[in-house]
Amino acid sequence: MRTQVAIIGAGPAGMLLSHLLAAEGVGSVVVETRSEEYVASRIRAGILEQSTVDLLRATGLGERLDAEGHRHRGIYLQWPGERHHLDFVDLTGRSVWVYGQTEVQKDLVAARTAAGQQVYYEVGDTALHDLETDHPSVTFTDASGAEVRVRADAVAGCDGSFGPSRCAVPSSVRQQWERVYPYSWLGILADVAPSTDELIYAWHPDGFALHSMRSSSVSRFYVQVPNDTSLDDWSDDRIWTALADRLGHGQDGWSLETGPITDRSVLPMRSFVATPMRHGRLFLAGDAAHIVPPTGAKGLNLAVADVALLAPALAALVRGSSSLADSYSDTALRRVWRCTHFSWWMTSMLHTSGDPFDAELQLSQLRWVCSSRAGAAGLAENYAGLPIGF
Amino acid sequence: MRTQVAIIGAGPAGMLLSHLLAAEGVGSVVVETRSEEYVASRIRAGILEQSTVDLLRATGLGERLDAEGHRHRGIYLQWPGERHHLDFVDLTGRSVWVYGQTEVQKDLVAARTAAGQQVYYEVGDTALHDLETDHPSVTFTDASGAEVRVRADAVAGCDGSFGPSRCAVPSSVRQQWERVYPYSWLGILADVAPSTDELIYAWHPDGFALHSMRSSSVSRFYVQVPNDTSLDDWSDDRIWTALADRLGHGQDGWSLETGPITDRSVLPMRSFVATPMRHGRLFLAGDAAHIVPPTGAKGLNLAVADVALLAPALAALVRGSSSLADSYSDTALRRVWRCTHFSWWMTSMLHTSGDPFDAELQLSQLRWVCSSRAGAAGLAENYAGLPIGF
Repeated sequence: MRTQVAIIGAGPAGMLLSHLLAAEGVGSVVVETRSEEYVASRIRAGILEQSTVDLLRATGLGERLDAEGHRHRGIYLQWPGERHHLDFVDLTGRSVWVYGQTEVQKDLVAARTAAGQQVYYEVGDTALHDLETDHPSVTFTDASGAEVRVRADAVAGCDGSFGPSRCAVPSSVRQQWERVYPYSWLGILADVAPSTDELIYAWHPDGFALHSMRSSSVSRFYVQVPNDTSLDDWSDDRIWTALADRLGHGQDGWSLETGPITDRSVLPMRSFVATPMRHGRLFLAGDAAHIVPPTGAKGLNLAVADVALLAPALAALVRGSSSLADSYSDTALRRVWRCTHFSWWMTSMLHTSGDPFDAELQLSQLRWVCSSRAGAAGLAENYAGLPIGF
Repeated sequence: MRTQVAIIGAGPAGMLLSHLLAAEGVGSVVVETRSEEYVASRIRAGILEQSTVDLLRATGLGERLDAEGHRHRGIYLQWPGERHHLDFVDLTGRSVWVYGQTEVQKDLVAARTAAGQQVYYEVGDTALHDLETDHPSVTFTDASGAEVRVRADAVAGCDGSFGPSRCAVPSSVRQQWERVYPYSWLGILADVAPSTDELIYAWHPDGFALHSMRSSSVSRFYVQVPNDTSLDDWSDDRIWTALADRLGHGQDGWSLETGPITDRSVLPMRSFVATPMRHGRLFLAGDAAHIVPPTGAKGLNLAVADVALLAPALAALVRGSSSLADSYSDTALRRVWRCTHFSWWMTSMLHTSGDPFDAELQLSQLRWVCSSRAGAAGLAENYAGLPIGF
């Protein structure tokens, strides 16, 4: 089989890339290890930054987002006794939207299905070949067990942290950076209206807590827990008590509403960057090249920013012009490191380490961010997101 | 002997306090362990922030500062291949001045001598008594060996990190925070005109370097070195080579001029805060209560800010009104923690740790500070300094 771009991974990065390439008249084939149902239902990010929303709207994917998404002007930062609102619109002119990754995925799948996009789900033994030539290919066994080879002008690795693409960059040229944090998030989904209009990021001596949401009837919560925490040790009651304590239930008349917990999981926290993001005719995008801890809400948005650069670079490449493809890795990595730093900074500012000096530095940093326009604007411009191509 | 305020320590904090108290009509006696010559000649900080200069000018101490000090609009931040100027005046409307602590000390001693201030140098066995009563006192043996007791309404501990005042706050109420950094500064003074118009803070894989200055013919340089570095291991040649490499000699036509080294020392890097800053009739100011690493140029300025709060508080106290005295510790500590955080942040951003992920975070942070107005303004407002009483 022959196409112009072979895309490995049918998550938001891969599907958005096929969508943007199609808009440029470039054909692609998408291959995915998991089932369509699995990819559609896995619970991930929930915050879209301004440039992500701009891109989705500009490419015909904004209708349901505009109808069902919630635009937020900013976030709350709090510590015991104080809650402050940072208004990103006032500070930077930019907003964020609450619209789950699951919803973005649905919109992408609907658009690609309507356009007749070829997607192979539940493939096995995916392998990349001849990446250093102009004739790369991807082989796999399809859901029926048949062996398939897709020949292409370029291969896009959108297959996340555990896919085969990253390791197809030879270790002799690949550099990797990693930081594992000494804490995790215990995250829950609950069938209860949010107790807040915008997200609350709470520093607390017991550990960080986050009140997020998915819709007007579904709330998302996280509490900082030690690594290797078992869900068995966290009853519903213990979870709600920790959230109430850390989020300040009962302070200044604010109360936390509770409801049935419909999903729970423990998320490790990791920073990871692999470079270069391009090797020969292989181009990496999203989690295949980098992982950020979720504190800055950057993971999905960074994947979208990668793909927004990659689509025009690949469209030019298949037509014989390689300059955008040649600069893709360096250009993308500027934003990757900016977001990696911001995500590390938000994480380090909000999670307790057990060191009393760290705690005072964190509180001093939080007070400054909430009292200085420069401090607030610095957080806001990173959180609401820089323009694509920064 | 009786006075209104017994001041322990004749460095800039103690001498400025006696000067400000005198302006309020409050008498004081200053006692100092070291000789007048030692205190006058020890080489310390060299950068005055806007509010320090404002205060010195407003209290008659600005004449020589205005004649001989150098106003700087900002600083340079650099890393290999790039040097950026941050213009504090443009960013915040505030400046900094190059004027050595030795010069400030000279001006203070001249003013206090002209006013007939009583200062006991070279005292021994300094001890603080009855701090929890309205009749505290300080005892010591004077330079002639005579035992002296100074009875006062209040005692000001301006005696630095190693003086007796801090430990006169009972350990049952005293809290301390400390961070020792895994590197030191090797600092030199050299008889050579500065090779730059404003300070250069340089990140480099070999370690941080700083090009500062004292006058148009005296330069001050620092290089990051491991803790426990011996000066014997650093020949003049090694020092100049390290400075040339780290500061970018030969890049973009810039060259580092060298000259005779007239002073050299190794400075450990430490953050330290003790609270409360007031216990009974004892009030701590400057290094007696807090130490910052020198990267943010905050040590002297923070001592001045403490004293600027303390003088009116003590003047009111000796006249029977205790409200400013009662709020002194909390008010001063807001700025102390802000400066402690900023000094830690500048230090952490610029010193290599040996961890490759840290290095990339630092470079990403530096690029953002130099490319984002919010990032630049955040550094500028902290470096040029917040108003007194913040």
